[in-house]
Amino acid sequence: MIIVMKPDATRQDIQKVEQRLLDLGFHTHPIYGEKKTVIGAVGDKSRIDPSNLARMVGVEAIVPIMKPYKLVGRELTKEPSVVDVGSGVRFGGEELVVIAGPCAIEGEEQIYQVAQAVKKSGARVLRGGAFKPRTSPYSFQGLEEEGLKLLYQVKQDLDMPVITEVVDTRDVELVSRYSDILQVGARNMQNFRLLSECGKTKKPVLLKRGLSSTIEEWLMAAEYIVSEGDSRVILCERGIRTFETATRNTMDINAIAVVKELSHLPIIADPSHGTGNWKYVNAAARAFVAAGADGLIIEVHPDPQHAASDGPQSLKPEVFDELMQVLKPIAQAVGRTF
Amino acid sequence: MIIVMKPDATRQDIQKVEQRLLDLGFHTHPIYGEKKTVIGAVGDKSRIDPSNLARMVGVEAIVPIMKPYKLVGRELTKEPSVVDVGSGVRFGGEELVVIAGPCAIEGEEQIYQVAQAVKKSGARVLRGGAFKPRTSPYSFQGLEEEGLKLLYQVKQDLDMPVITEVVDTRDVELVSRYSDILQVGARNMQNFRLLSECGKTKKPVLLKRGLSSTIEEWLMAAEYIVSEGDSRVILCERGIRTFETATRNTMDINAIAVVKELSHLPIIADPSHGTGNWKYVNAAARAFVAAGADGLIIEVHPDPQHAASDGPQSLKPEVFDELMQVLKPIAQAVGRTF
Amino acid sequence: MIIVMKPDATRQDIQKVEQRLLDLGFHTHPIYGEKKTVIGAVGDKSRIDPSNLARMVGVEAIVPIMKPYKLVGRELTKEPSVVDVGSGVRFGGEELVVIAGPCAIEGEEQIYQVAQAVKKSGARVLRGGAFKPRTSPYSFQGLEEEGLKLLYQVKQDLDMPVITEVVDTRDVELVSRYSDILQVGARNMQNFRLLSECGKTKKPVLLKRGLSSTIEEWLMAAEYIVSEGDSRVILCERGIRTFETATRNTMDINAIAVVKELSHLPIIADPSHGTGNWKYVNAAARAFVAAGADGLIIEVHPDPQHAASDGPQSLKPEVFDELMQVLKPIAQAVGRTF
Amino acid sequence: MIIVMKPDATRQDIQKVEQRLLDLGFHTHPIYGEKKTVIGAVGDKSRIDPSNLARMVGVEAIVPIMKPYKLVGRELTKEPSVVDVGSGVRFGGEELVVIAGPCAIEGEEQIYQVAQAVKKSGARVLRGGAFKPRTSPYSFQGLEEEGLKLLYQVKQDLDMPVITEVVDTRDVELVSRYSDILQVGARNMQNFRLLSECGKTKKPVLLKRGLSSTIEEWLMAAEYIVSEGDSRVILCERGIRTFETATRNTMDINAIAVVKELSHLPIIADPSHGTGNWKYVNAAARAFVAAGADGLIIEVHPDPQHAASDGPQSLKPEVFDELMQVLKPIAQAVGRTF
Repeated sequence: MIIVMKPDATRQDIQKVEQRLLDLGFHTHPIYGEKKTVIGAVGDKSRIDPSNLARMVGVEAIVPIMKPYKLVGRELTKEPSVVDVGSGVRFGGEELVVIAGPCAIEGEEQIYQVAQAVKKSGARVLRGGAFKPRTSPYSFQGLEEEGLKLLYQVKQDLDMPVITEVVDTRDVELVSRYSDILQVGARNMQNFRLLSECGKTKKPVLLKRGLSSTIEEWLMAAEYIVSEGDSRVILCERGIRTFETATRNTMDINAIAVVKELSHLPIIADPSHGTGNWKYVNAAARAFVAAGADGLIIEVHPDPQHAASDGPQSLKPEVFDELMQVLKPIAQAVGRTF
Repeated sequence: MIIVMKPDATRQDIQKVEQRLLDLGFHTHPIYGEKKTVIGAVGDKSRIDPSNLARMVGVEAIVPIMKPYKLVGRELTKEPSVVDVGSGVRFGGEELVVIAGPCAIEGEEQIYQVAQAVKKSGARVLRGGAFKPRTSPYSFQGLEEEGLKLLYQVKQDLDMPVITEVVDTRDVELVSRYSDILQVGARNMQNFRLLSECGKTKKPVLLKRGLSSTIEEWLMAAEYIVSEGDSRVILCERGIRTFETATRNTMDINAIAVVKELSHLPIIADPSHGTGNWKYVNAAARAFVAAGADGLIIEVHPDPQHAASDGPQSLKPEVFDELMQVLKPIAQAVGRTF
Repeated sequence: MIIVMKPDATRQDIQKVEQRLLDLGFHTHPIYGEKKTVIGAVGDKSRIDPSNLARMVGVEAIVPIMKPYKLVGRELTKEPSVVDVGSGVRFGGEELVVIAGPCAIEGEEQIYQVAQAVKKSGARVLRGGAFKPRTSPYSFQGLEEEGLKLLYQVKQDLDMPVITEVVDTRDVELVSRYSDILQVGARNMQNFRLLSECGKTKKPVLLKRGLSSTIEEWLMAAEYIVSEGDSRVILCERGIRTFETATRNTMDINAIAVVKELSHLPIIADPSHGTGNWKYVNAAARAFVAAGADGLIIEVHPDPQHAASDGPQSLKPEVFDELMQVLKPIAQAVGRTF
Repeated sequence: MIIVMKPDATRQDIQKVEQRLLDLGFHTHPIYGEKKTVIGAVGDKSRIDPSNLARMVGVEAIVPIMKPYKLVGRELTKEPSVVDVGSGVRFGGEELVVIAGPCAIEGEEQIYQVAQAVKKSGARVLRGGAFKPRTSPYSFQGLEEEGLKLLYQVKQDLDMPVITEVVDTRDVELVSRYSDILQVGARNMQNFRLLSECGKTKKPVLLKRGLSSTIEEWLMAAEYIVSEGDSRVILCERGIRTFETATRNTMDINAIAVVKELSHLPIIADPSHGTGNWKYVNAAARAFVAAGADGLIIEVHPDPQHAASDGPQSLKPEVFDELMQVLKPIAQAVGRTF
């Protein structure tokens, strides 16, 4: 880490900072510039919260040099990780993997209808919400365990891995029994207890990016899961919050290339939430595949006008099928099987 | 609600939308403009997720007319609420109430030292974190129940209400036993299960605004708590995330006047997190008092350089004492006792 | 437009608003709901700044129904516009058009070297800055007219249309003499005088989106140009400002689909500024082509380490050439010739 | 500046970077950590665009140590500047200075009426727009020179300095003849040519913060003016663009304390644009005075319902008068005369 001293820091101020660093077990390397002195500190940062040094007299700023994440970063693990979720489905490998299904499971007929349709179109994993985080306490909150059972039944019948969201530490064990992949939603990206509980199950976890999370914070959230010994984390870009109101969120297309550089984890994209409007899903899906995403998660509903949740952004099965056709040559153009 | 039809919507499209609305129990009032038709729909919106109507052919947009929050809004409850947290401390009344204490409880000596100091300076409530949500899994996570016990001990000895954060639904009952006020942090503002559990305790809840939450979403989060029958909610503006990096967050000073207009709940401000830098806390605290906040929550630590958490933004007790002196005439200028 | 009255608006308040609307030449259509009254106002909004009605007693909100832009919108002009910039280059048609060149023109050798290379790789238009808007007054500000002359010379020699930025109303005439396309940069997107002056030249104008501009504001800026009688406007998404710092800007991939729906103007993307890092340019370029952009503008420099401006985000000619190869199958997959 | 090398940078990579720095006239100070090497470079940064070094093999990041602004910063000029605008009005001194007047000058009667009223209430400077930057080309664009003449007439009659916006380099000379202070609006904050032209007049310049400008970019914009030899710059915080839509902008209350730390220039606030709603102006004005702003600029109109521009956020003269009364004790509480 580098400590930048103020232009008017005295020699005594500098010595005190050096002494403090030495006491903490660092080696110090002061560099005296014309206007400012900086002190390079070499050693183990984990013994100290470096931000506290900012309180010392004469200190202008602290510049960290090492990335705060270790297990999910590229510095230790050079090769990209491949996350196997069962039934031969692997995220982060050569194949582009599409997850599809309704926002919320509404009943047996609905989930079967969607599952069969999306499977036929080429989706490899079925999504369906049983516990729904809703902005309003008066909105439909999901079928809960009944929904999980329906999901499990479909999974068995169609031999298709399933994913569903978990929103409460108390439900992690329950959801783990039914679902192949645990989904942590954007609003819970920094629900650190939930991250740890999910990590303890050692199941694959899909971690959505928070609405206002930097990529670094997102990787730190993944680090919570991996530090519990669960290395099967899949990241999911689903749009961030900006001033633009023409779409529900602003999708950070750059995040794919940045995450690929910083982390070895697979990353997929959610154009349904990222746009909030079924009319824009196709373009966003194409774009993320072209940018190098390892997969997509897309909301499909047989009758979006009557959906219990997220109707405006859900595709009808036939529209989803067209999208899957459109994606093929793009996936191939970027070297993916699909 | 108002349904805006596209310029090229046909008469048939319009009729279908009207029929759908009638089926849902609405009365419809179409207005035919030169270029566009709009349909006013009068009735009970709660039977329907209006966003789904956006899927109908010819519909351009849906404009809600009623506020989505009911219990926390001003439409039903005209008078400002006063939240009594015990020991004669009331938020939302004439008195400006200051909460102070360390970010994290680190030990008996530390918490007593701070508590006595801030009480002497005029703070009415003691804060202290026992469960800490930290960006990194490698950072200090709090003393947990041991911390709660220390907090309770201080509360008893100094007859001072205490507040501490709860980060897990599984801890709500435990924290409720020790703390007068439950704090829901910014990262958990849309952890709806946690909100509901807190509401069920019927204890006062301090609800911080999420980093990327609109005021409407914040009020909807409060609605979750109040809809459980717990009307003692205190809102807390603690800064939102923007592009500016000179401070940890951007404090939304306008939020005070807006919330006062839209809601009857008391609102306080957290200049420690809102600035992230002890040097700026004084100015922000003054500003929020002048803007009409009902109180403040401020981090105070006897030795910020060695704080386990949030050292850079914590005030030393003597600096906090000066701040309290500075606030007096400003509080009086806006009609507050202090 | 719709006027939403407050729940406690009196019959008299409502009548006064209606009277005011009638005086302004509107027809009024009040709808009396259970809690609120709304008044539909049909007529010519251009006679009045509707926001002023918000000042009347009892008014809660004003909801506009018509889009504020006319000439650039899809409501009047259904078919997509094709912008011909000379030498057979057309934006918005079937062909994907790539603009490439250095951020700043630094000298004859440099601009020729780049121009020949990018032309060979398939770029159709040459970019090169002669007037540079720089954050610091101490940075290189461009070769000015000398640069324009070099650009013009290359244009003549290679029969390649050229584009360069204009940053001052006083330079519009000068730049028009040398350049085929006038570029209005992100920082000048709401420099309305500059927009009008550019529009008066009747030359093609490339209008970059402002760093914090909504799509609606961007279209309104285009409306300034078109309202001067210049219909040859090309929009350019170049990233917006968000909280994310891993990249220079956040590229709004959704903007392509949204603009295509709202406007008939062609739209291209600038992955160089949108990422700020040459390593991410390839992924962003692929994504925007897949999303349906009509073209790209990319910074290429023979020696980015020694570039006078934007070195970090410029591609070397050989890297640009690889990119052009990669784009081919993606362009074809979305139905473009390239 | 500090160059951070990647963990896998070779000794040769490091040597090449050092050699490049030596060639550029820097002294180098490499520090070899366990995982990464950093190189301190001491010397004159102005000879080089340091961002280009990021292109060298093995370089991870460049960390600047010196502030990019010189003339407006506190490093060279320790004492706060006081900007004298004539008639005994000084910004940045002990007195809190309030600028008031209509958004746009609409006619002789209007401007006289407002001027007399605000002067009586204690405003020291009169504002009034003659050239209006409007989002729509179809909105009122100002009375132009006729407006300037009216402003000048009032200035003479009431011995009150006046301020008006300049939006075009071609108008700078004209506006300078009539106005005591040149206002550069938010949308033109990075119209660098306009900044330079204003600086050349040596007149006081009020520089509003751009909607999406960091404080550092704002100070760099001020540096453009001061580097022309015009040291009389007044900064004005007017709200930034965020995701919150309840108000027109989000006012950055922290900006006052930050700017006071980083720069010697006076800073005022514009609660009219910062809120966009006259109901919130009072609270924001109180807050900024309490935070330490050197003044305020407030829109006042005799008949906001019929204002040509910004009706919703303009105060009636009597409401402005009440505000001025409310501000007195707050100004005094923070040590201001008023």
